[in-house]
Amino acid sequence: MIKLYGYWRSLAAYRVRVALNLKGLTFTEEIVDLATDAQLAPAFRALNPQGAVPTVVIDGGPPLTQSLAIMELLDELHPEPPLLPTDPLRRAYARSLALLFAADHHPLITPRVTRYLRSNFAADDDKQTEWVRHWVHQSLQEAEARLVREHNGSSFCHSDLPGIADICLASQVLGAKAFNVDLTDTPHVNRISAACLANEAFSRAHPLRQPRV
Amino acid sequence: MIKLYGYWRSLAAYRVRVALNLKGLTFTEEIVDLATDAQLAPAFRALNPQGAVPTVVIDGGPPLTQSLAIMELLDELHPEPPLLPTDPLRRAYARSLALLFAADHHPLITPRVTRYLRSNFAADDDKQTEWVRHWVHQSLQEAEARLVREHNGSSFCHSDLPGIADICLASQVLGAKAFNVDLTDTPHVNRISAACLANEAFSRAHPLRQPRV
Repeated sequence: MIKLYGYWRSLAAYRVRVALNLKGLTFTEEIVDLATDAQLAPAFRALNPQGAVPTVVIDGGPPLTQSLAIMELLDELHPEPPLLPTDPLRRAYARSLALLFAADHHPLITPRVTRYLRSNFAADDDKQTEWVRHWVHQSLQEAEARLVREHNGSSFCHSDLPGIADICLASQVLGAKAFNVDLTDTPHVNRISAACLANEAFSRAHPLRQPRV
Repeated sequence: MIKLYGYWRSLAAYRVRVALNLKGLTFTEEIVDLATDAQLAPAFRALNPQGAVPTVVIDGGPPLTQSLAIMELLDELHPEPPLLPTDPLRRAYARSLALLFAADHHPLITPRVTRYLRSNFAADDDKQTEWVRHWVHQSLQEAEARLVREHNGSSFCHSDLPGIADICLASQVLGAKAFNVDLTDTPHVNRISAACLANEAFSRAHPLRQPRV
């Protein structure tokens, strides 16, 4: 039995939800209400000391954290359909594109960071939105520059099957849309994102299709 | 032939340097002078559109980016000594601890971010240092809380061989020391960091032992 601790608005929880759907795995989701800081409560921190979603528990085992580590584990435990290419160099490309989003950019726009901006730099809502837009836009620009060079005409980033890079790309584009980030100059990104959203594993995982409480 | 584009002060380049040393691989390093923004020059962006080190080229192949993706590739191409445990769950632990540092925290303290704080929030040197210290300290606190629970008494995070989690931990502790971050309440982190620094693969890769120009 797989239990996902998530939240509708969390882009990292979305990634894990998509991966579970792509693997055809049944799971239950427990809502950790980020709107009331439930992730910081001692009971949840006992599960994940980072106080963050997603956290996954498989068959009552130890809690697993970090969306990329969870997706790699799912791929190792359930190899079909694969979330990574088989060729080592292409695996490296997929992982590094996933990290462009999930490491270099998404952490910058999480609540703990915007909270710091508010408390230590007196950043009002407009300034916080400007911050979020700046980094999301930059991530999509950088990904576009990479895809111009390395995309081989397949449906997704690196193959005709969606994998970890596509999942991270799709999550970032959801963030971009939520914050009205300009998407006019990222055609590769937009095309791959549209291919993802048309996939049932992605559409079922969509933030707006999740219960909120 | 392996070529690393790095910079002495880059903690992410340090990670790749350590991994190459642990694998016993010979490489040359080309300095990308972050002090003069050489990483943003068109010539370097042609290699890595993100304008960031580390970037690695193996045998004249395509440029590889993102320290974690590069380390995973090195581990796939040269399995001995391993940088990841063999058990899938322990691999997930190692990856998620590596990501705690390399994804959730290190990106927050990179030059592109402190530059934004300076230009958009008028953050002076003190405010920038406070920002860096805050996130580095938080990362070590979170890692300590995880290690209290999951460390099994081995020399490093998850085994008696150093791997990707240890490399990321060691890089973050180097950052902590450079910014005088309080290390009094992270005994597991400190012990593992000391074990890393005593390892020749880590000491040869140390920022202060690299040429600066």
